[in-house]
Amino acid sequence: MKVLIVYAHPEPDSLTGALKDVAVEQLRADGHEVVVSDLYAAGWKASADAADFGEVTERNFMLASGAAYATGTLAADIRAEQERLLWADAVLLHFPLWWFSLPAILKGWVDRVFTCGFAYGAGGTAIPRYGDGVLAGKRGMLVVAVGGREPAYSERGINGPIDELLFPIQHGILYYPGLDVLPPFVAHGTIRVDDERFAELAGQLRGRLSELEQTEPIRYRRQAGGDYDRALRLAPGREVPGTGGFGLHVRGR
Amino acid sequence: MKVLIVYAHPEPDSLTGALKDVAVEQLRADGHEVVVSDLYAAGWKASADAADFGEVTERNFMLASGAAYATGTLAADIRAEQERLLWADAVLLHFPLWWFSLPAILKGWVDRVFTCGFAYGAGGTAIPRYGDGVLAGKRGMLVVAVGGREPAYSERGINGPIDELLFPIQHGILYYPGLDVLPPFVAHGTIRVDDERFAELAGQLRGRLSELEQTEPIRYRRQAGGDYDRALRLAPGREVPGTGGFGLHVRGR
Repeated sequence: MKVLIVYAHPEPDSLTGALKDVAVEQLRADGHEVVVSDLYAAGWKASADAADFGEVTERNFMLASGAAYATGTLAADIRAEQERLLWADAVLLHFPLWWFSLPAILKGWVDRVFTCGFAYGAGGTAIPRYGDGVLAGKRGMLVVAVGGREPAYSERGINGPIDELLFPIQHGILYYPGLDVLPPFVAHGTIRVDDERFAELAGQLRGRLSELEQTEPIRYRRQAGGDYDRALRLAPGREVPGTGGFGLHVRGR
Repeated sequence: MKVLIVYAHPEPDSLTGALKDVAVEQLRADGHEVVVSDLYAAGWKASADAADFGEVTERNFMLASGAAYATGTLAADIRAEQERLLWADAVLLHFPLWWFSLPAILKGWVDRVFTCGFAYGAGGTAIPRYGDGVLAGKRGMLVVAVGGREPAYSERGINGPIDELLFPIQHGILYYPGLDVLPPFVAHGTIRVDDERFAELAGQLRGRLSELEQTEPIRYRRQAGGDYDRALRLAPGREVPGTGGFGLHVRGR
């Protein structure tokens, strides 16, 4: 497969950086082609603004992004990342969880690269989403380093369950433009990692990546799959009994 | 009161920008002092990196942020925002919901300003959190423009309930360092807003802001309030019956 790793940590010798090196090595050993978008090394511009759009007359910010996409005037760094996404069979976002979400530079990769017209539709341009879309048929996966310990992110943990914290990213960012989302690789307790623990984490990550082609995706519901009403609410009775909130949007077996 | 508005939209004539002007006007009319951190106008640096820390010898990125805070070598723009937070009695984050979260520039304000030692502890520095902390006794509130329509963000909506999408921000970012979090002001369907709808939204926002001092905060559980076990899981039987996930961390009446 062709694998794009979008990697965001300011320090190459961080745990996140070291695990990214492990990922690249393992994927190549398994015969995959790997490209890394190293956002910090590239000096990636994080903040979306009108300078991203070149010469467009549309005033509405979102529609201007769509006009720039349609007419080919998007900034070169954005177009290059869109090309990489189209090239890839699998996309990994590889980052530390900062304030329960993406580091700003990686959020800015999403904000700027997932433009109107490419990743979502508006203003009369209907683009299928949630399971369909420009990235349909490709696989997506998060590789996340979390400073805190696992119990604090468990079902009753004070921070909230990690799967719910990641839902806006996995469902709202990866699945939205069509990626099949694999269960995340989450390394907990990364504030202190000794050599033994690092070897353990590296081994677990290698195992997950070696199964990248076979792993079953999270069973999110396709928007076009007949489960939603016209206002985009889950139709009555479709939920897995006992689920609620974000869990409604995962199909049963 | 002293009110800090942290505002993030690239276009001053956007809906978000216009509602920010309404907020400033109303708060001043009500006798409050208002300071706006206009992140785009200030050219705010979004991506946290070691250049933020000045001369520190600590290699671990998080601990280096704490060392820079402790020794006063943090970048001037970060120190200025920390001073504004300490000055304020209420803090509003005013932004459009992009990809179900903060725009990157505003996430970068959090990543860079909420340093170790200031907003959270690590490496032997215990700092109380979730209801206690450096911003305890102050009020926080989100003012959010959401492009999509309300049903798609309702209890069974395809995007997930808006309150759950905002939990990582309201609980994980605002409540964590101690802010009392007021219910958010959410404007839905902002892709198209005519004059009549704008007047309606502006009136609703004015109403909410006029009650800024009296509004009851969301009843999140204090970490130190006795509800959590030593591993920071909600103790058995403490939940409001029928709640789960993020909802566990809200107290009943």
